[in-house]
Amino acid sequence: MARIAIDLHGGDFGPSILIPACFRYFRANPQHHGVLFGNLNARQAFKHSCPANIEWIDTNDISDLAHKPAQLMRRDGFSSIETAFKALRDGQVDALVSAEHTGVLLVLVGKYGALHPALNRPVLAAWLPTLTGTAMMLDLGASFTANQQQLLTYAAVGKALASTGEANPRLSLLNVGAEYYKGPEALRLAHATLQGWSDIDYRGFIEASDIFSGQADVIVCDGFTGNSIIKASAGALDLTFALLKARLEHGLLKPLLAWWLKRQLTTVLKKLDPRLANGALVAGSNLLVVKSHGNANDRAFASAIERAVSALALDSTGKIRRELDKLVEKWPLD
Amino acid sequence: MARIAIDLHGGDFGPSILIPACFRYFRANPQHHGVLFGNLNARQAFKHSCPANIEWIDTNDISDLAHKPAQLMRRDGFSSIETAFKALRDGQVDALVSAEHTGVLLVLVGKYGALHPALNRPVLAAWLPTLTGTAMMLDLGASFTANQQQLLTYAAVGKALASTGEANPRLSLLNVGAEYYKGPEALRLAHATLQGWSDIDYRGFIEASDIFSGQADVIVCDGFTGNSIIKASAGALDLTFALLKARLEHGLLKPLLAWWLKRQLTTVLKKLDPRLANGALVAGSNLLVVKSHGNANDRAFASAIERAVSALALDSTGKIRRELDKLVEKWPLD
Repeated sequence: MARIAIDLHGGDFGPSILIPACFRYFRANPQHHGVLFGNLNARQAFKHSCPANIEWIDTNDISDLAHKPAQLMRRDGFSSIETAFKALRDGQVDALVSAEHTGVLLVLVGKYGALHPALNRPVLAAWLPTLTGTAMMLDLGASFTANQQQLLTYAAVGKALASTGEANPRLSLLNVGAEYYKGPEALRLAHATLQGWSDIDYRGFIEASDIFSGQADVIVCDGFTGNSIIKASAGALDLTFALLKARLEHGLLKPLLAWWLKRQLTTVLKKLDPRLANGALVAGSNLLVVKSHGNANDRAFASAIERAVSALALDSTGKIRRELDKLVEKWPLD
Repeated sequence: MARIAIDLHGGDFGPSILIPACFRYFRANPQHHGVLFGNLNARQAFKHSCPANIEWIDTNDISDLAHKPAQLMRRDGFSSIETAFKALRDGQVDALVSAEHTGVLLVLVGKYGALHPALNRPVLAAWLPTLTGTAMMLDLGASFTANQQQLLTYAAVGKALASTGEANPRLSLLNVGAEYYKGPEALRLAHATLQGWSDIDYRGFIEASDIFSGQADVIVCDGFTGNSIIKASAGALDLTFALLKARLEHGLLKPLLAWWLKRQLTTVLKKLDPRLANGALVAGSNLLVVKSHGNANDRAFASAIERAVSALALDSTGKIRRELDKLVEKWPLD
């Protein structure tokens, strides 16, 4: 049984989307337990249909979060997200899922958790759809830049997250070209170091055009680039869908055929949308925290809950710690 | 009449693609003049069908380019691309189109041209398809990082390139969030500076998800991120097309209908493919140089030639110089 804390006040839509998402997930998964942190008023409309494996914790609303994230460090907070973090720290729950801003989650992971000594900040890691399955990409915006050491820690975290069973995941560094002499210095240094490590299946540089091809299981990059790539790809898919839809609607097709075709297109495009592989790990501390997109619908938020449950089952937090420990042995900290 | 130099030895396919591309373009545009730089042997197969407005200059092949770009600075070269650059420097042609590697073009622009004093390196600028038309995006990989001053020069170059007639183009800085306090310091500083300038229609930060929406005419970012975004978006579209095609081919559709649908999809996806808006300006010097993708087909390479012709007609080089001059007045160089 996994006990999952849900912060009901993050995201663009708050409880009106997040409560139905929790009901959807925990009704379908009665073996797990949901602990919902939020304002008591929010649940009035839902109280009659609540599954038995959901528990409610009444908290302040998020109004005291309306500060810059750094201010969160300095005072004791009682918002839904801080109360949930305290429960996670104290072991009352096993994992936390929130659609709160990345900056807030990063600060609270530092406030309530213990970051691995190899890291200065957590790493944001998520799965992307590819032609042959999925790939793990990180960092997606926890940091803006990445020096050699950060890139190596991302490689360790990525390896831990993408390892399943015996297979060692194929890992690549994102660069503007596949040639060894290209790109910023930090990338070239990390490249040279990774080539010397036998316990990582390092495949060299990958260009962004090949991210979705399935030729790498783990793609390591700085957070600004990773964040931009995910968002741009999603934007390109949105545009594709809008144009295809317009073409079909204004074409000479019979309405029934156009409807059927749109369904086909929707199915394919949804499969590719990075937003629907919802649930990024805020990785690198002793706490298991999953960030949902702010604009997730109830289905997407339920995916983020599922992500937390499967990360628990895989002991992702422990695996990451062990890989980072190994890294520190090979690569002593400054 | 525009006199356009074409380097026949760049790109993945060399003369076999580039010569037909030139024939295509200059046959359709008899008012312009093409000067093709390449090895004499390359043209044997094509000599009977050559349009009258094409001239051939025999040069060495590119074998002497197989060094690191920096070495190009130090010796007199007679490859097709260097001979073409000399013709451009000496005013024998008005513009140059090449599918050579970016690194080579950047070095040769520095060797044969005069960079504007506001810049340390040229800027790679290209048009992207959007829902409502096109947007100019820069830098796309001439530099890997961008400090405040570089971002401001990109804004000036982008404004010059996207200005048509009276309208002042809407300009945005790419960031990980639209809030003013987000992102790396260089971006926040450039943001604050641009907000104070009345001659630029600055619209604030834009997230990568909105690049293709048409809400900005000019999108400014560092070269590593810009390069990655273009490539990732193209990769996402490739994947979309592959999956849609497979779905249609293995579906229950009648062959004729499937064929028709694939044509519709191809049309829409081609419209969006950043690679087909081929032709990036290597901007910021007194030379007009257009870089084609290395893997451009003949149609795409012809687009790059058209890009050079239209940049000449718009006096893009002069406009960029004047915008950068204005920038230096407002923002004295270090």
